[in-house]
Amino acid sequence: MSTIAAPSDPEADPRVKAVFDDIRATRKTAFINNLWRRLAFDPPLLTRTWSEVKEVMATPSALDPLTKELIYIAVSVANGCSYCVHSHTAAARGRGMTAEQHAELLAIVGLAGKTNQMATAMQLPIDALFDADVGT
Amino acid sequence: MSTIAAPSDPEADPRVKAVFDDIRATRKTAFINNLWRRLAFDPPLLTRTWSEVKEVMATPSALDPLTKELIYIAVSVANGCSYCVHSHTAAARGRGMTAEQHAELLAIVGLAGKTNQMATAMQLPIDALFDADVGT
Amino acid sequence: MSTIAAPSDPEADPRVKAVFDDIRATRKTAFINNLWRRLAFDPPLLTRTWSEVKEVMATPSALDPLTKELIYIAVSVANGCSYCVHSHTAAARGRGMTAEQHAELLAIVGLAGKTNQMATAMQLPIDALFDADVGT
Amino acid sequence: MSTIAAPSDPEADPRVKAVFDDIRATRKTAFINNLWRRLAFDPPLLTRTWSEVKEVMATPSALDPLTKELIYIAVSVANGCSYCVHSHTAAARGRGMTAEQHAELLAIVGLAGKTNQMATAMQLPIDALFDADVGT
Amino acid sequence: MSTIAAPSDPEADPRVKAVFDDIRATRKTAFINNLWRRLAFDPPLLTRTWSEVKEVMATPSALDPLTKELIYIAVSVANGCSYCVHSHTAAARGRGMTAEQHAELLAIVGLAGKTNQMATAMQLPIDALFDADVGT
Amino acid sequence: MSTIAAPSDPEADPRVKAVFDDIRATRKTAFINNLWRRLAFDPPLLTRTWSEVKEVMATPSALDPLTKELIYIAVSVANGCSYCVHSHTAAARGRGMTAEQHAELLAIVGLAGKTNQMATAMQLPIDALFDADVGT
Repeated sequence: MSTIAAPSDPEADPRVKAVFDDIRATRKTAFINNLWRRLAFDPPLLTRTWSEVKEVMATPSALDPLTKELIYIAVSVANGCSYCVHSHTAAARGRGMTAEQHAELLAIVGLAGKTNQMATAMQLPIDALFDADVGT
Repeated sequence: MSTIAAPSDPEADPRVKAVFDDIRATRKTAFINNLWRRLAFDPPLLTRTWSEVKEVMATPSALDPLTKELIYIAVSVANGCSYCVHSHTAAARGRGMTAEQHAELLAIVGLAGKTNQMATAMQLPIDALFDADVGT
Repeated sequence: MSTIAAPSDPEADPRVKAVFDDIRATRKTAFINNLWRRLAFDPPLLTRTWSEVKEVMATPSALDPLTKELIYIAVSVANGCSYCVHSHTAAARGRGMTAEQHAELLAIVGLAGKTNQMATAMQLPIDALFDADVGT
Repeated sequence: MSTIAAPSDPEADPRVKAVFDDIRATRKTAFINNLWRRLAFDPPLLTRTWSEVKEVMATPSALDPLTKELIYIAVSVANGCSYCVHSHTAAARGRGMTAEQHAELLAIVGLAGKTNQMATAMQLPIDALFDADVGT
Repeated sequence: MSTIAAPSDPEADPRVKAVFDDIRATRKTAFINNLWRRLAFDPPLLTRTWSEVKEVMATPSALDPLTKELIYIAVSVANGCSYCVHSHTAAARGRGMTAEQHAELLAIVGLAGKTNQMATAMQLPIDALFDADVGT
Repeated sequence: MSTIAAPSDPEADPRVKAVFDDIRATRKTAFINNLWRRLAFDPPLLTRTWSEVKEVMATPSALDPLTKELIYIAVSVANGCSYCVHSHTAAARGRGMTAEQHAELLAIVGLAGKTNQMATAMQLPIDALFDADVGT
């Protein structure tokens, strides 16, 4: 059940096929998950979105691949996106996340959720030392 | 401006002093930030909260200290907690976060925020492969 | 599965019947969706809620009906309300939303989600020019 | 600084004056807080909003006044509304909230924030027993 | 479907058995809900989480048990945690919540959600009187 | 106060100057707001972000410019991004939003916030008719 109808043959559109081929090549798998399959209803949006995901998440950079997935999961949990929590937890497992690291991720995400609420409830004044101009 | 009055002499209470001393020793700094200073209005809650923060964030574990702070920032951003974004960004800097890593954190957090919204707007069915029982 | 038991014969209560009749007349359909069917467990709350929805969403006003639905979807996505995303996307389709407009809605909602996170992560000082007293 | 310009003489409009008079009479104070002062830019919206606040929060009902304020604070914290956290914490104090109860509110709100994140991260299947039709 | 595989025999681990036994004794029921069953994949995290839930929610304190559950539901709704909304609504029913109180909870949570959005949209300046140092 | 230090002379970097020049040309104003000024600390991220904002928000498309800003405000309110609420409300005014339309936006955003919370609290089953495959 979705707000976007399931596509019958998305790769009939060459723009969609080009993106799906690149996803398969980048991820070294034949599997195309629903985010891309449903987004195929608008090829330009599909192309731009995949392009950004590939650049930010699948290109070697200053943070290692697993750390990037952990950050992605953390945001997705806090935003309450079921689909994204599932897809990025699977991705993190694919990049080597152990059960111990998973438990630690849950502990940090839970603790942050707790102190976020407490700090917001207290409406804490921000310490001057935290200002980037001061603290650096 | 806060919903909790600023304490005049929080360390007059020995339970508060014990926590503040442990914060100073653990962090190797004399600085006690407002979260702890205001939370001192209820010493048991202060004690339990610090105990958990120390255990999760300041104890060697399966994830390195900088990764833990990046996850903490990510959750705090998504939850919109100004105080926590400030305090944990300062902490991440203290643990060596470079400007390049900070920019990358912004890029990931931004991208996750974007796809979280898009996936929620599409109400995507979750791929069976993402199920932990199937995907493992 | 719900936290409110499914009603057996909600229209047996004349207050519920009056609301359902008005929904059918206003929307020109026999279909009553679950929000109203479950809310029928408390007729006064049902009555007040429908009254507000009718006034804000189904009365000619300064914004056209489709624009109002697009705003409603946008809020519902950001708040992560699955039910509301579904019901208001269906309503937007009923008011003429094209696939191109739907894709554009996804693009805006996604971009806003992205810059919301980035601006919150940077804890940007608000430009004085944005103050309504100054900027007007 | 606001997105709504500060009104110069809001009570010059009789609809605004009527609402402000009712707020003063209901709350037994001359103080009109900024929510109402700024909302005065649109008298019909001001009138409807106050009418609902008065009915839900200032009319004797099945929940006592302090409990209602605690629930209001809890939602406002989770939604990250600074203004509302401040105004309803002040209201709760006005209705007798003790420091001990305030600390307990922080503890519950924090714990809920924590387990909310953990449950979302785990994407827990909902126990059949929680279904209202089954569990009642 | 979950990001944590269903455990086959969680109580084979004595640490898990000890927690489950305490849950059963505290709640006077043989039923162990999925939060605990899945969290059993990491016994230390299970132990710490239950310990906090027991202390905050199942120990006599300044707020009565039903009020505590109502606050918990309120946070869970605003955070969009389906599992938590279900589990704590069931708990509130178990502690005597009537249909009338449930409807009132919905009314307050709905109204708070509404004014939270409106206050955030207006970016209201916070009244000086709300400052805890001033207002006390 | 920000987590990103204020840049001294951002346009000394030609990549930043190129973006700022394009912002000024696109918006027909000399004013560069803080989002771009602070984001200048990482020129590639600045370039990509502006490129997307320009494409989605400042290019003629299926939705008119004011409608796009109203949707952007709606998401920003629900996500609690103060900076974005301010900047996009100013942008909407610049695109002709009247006080009456602004009040109506507040009414819709408020109502959506309300029913989002109520629907989440009720954990409503989604009507089959809302499925895109069925409903189209």
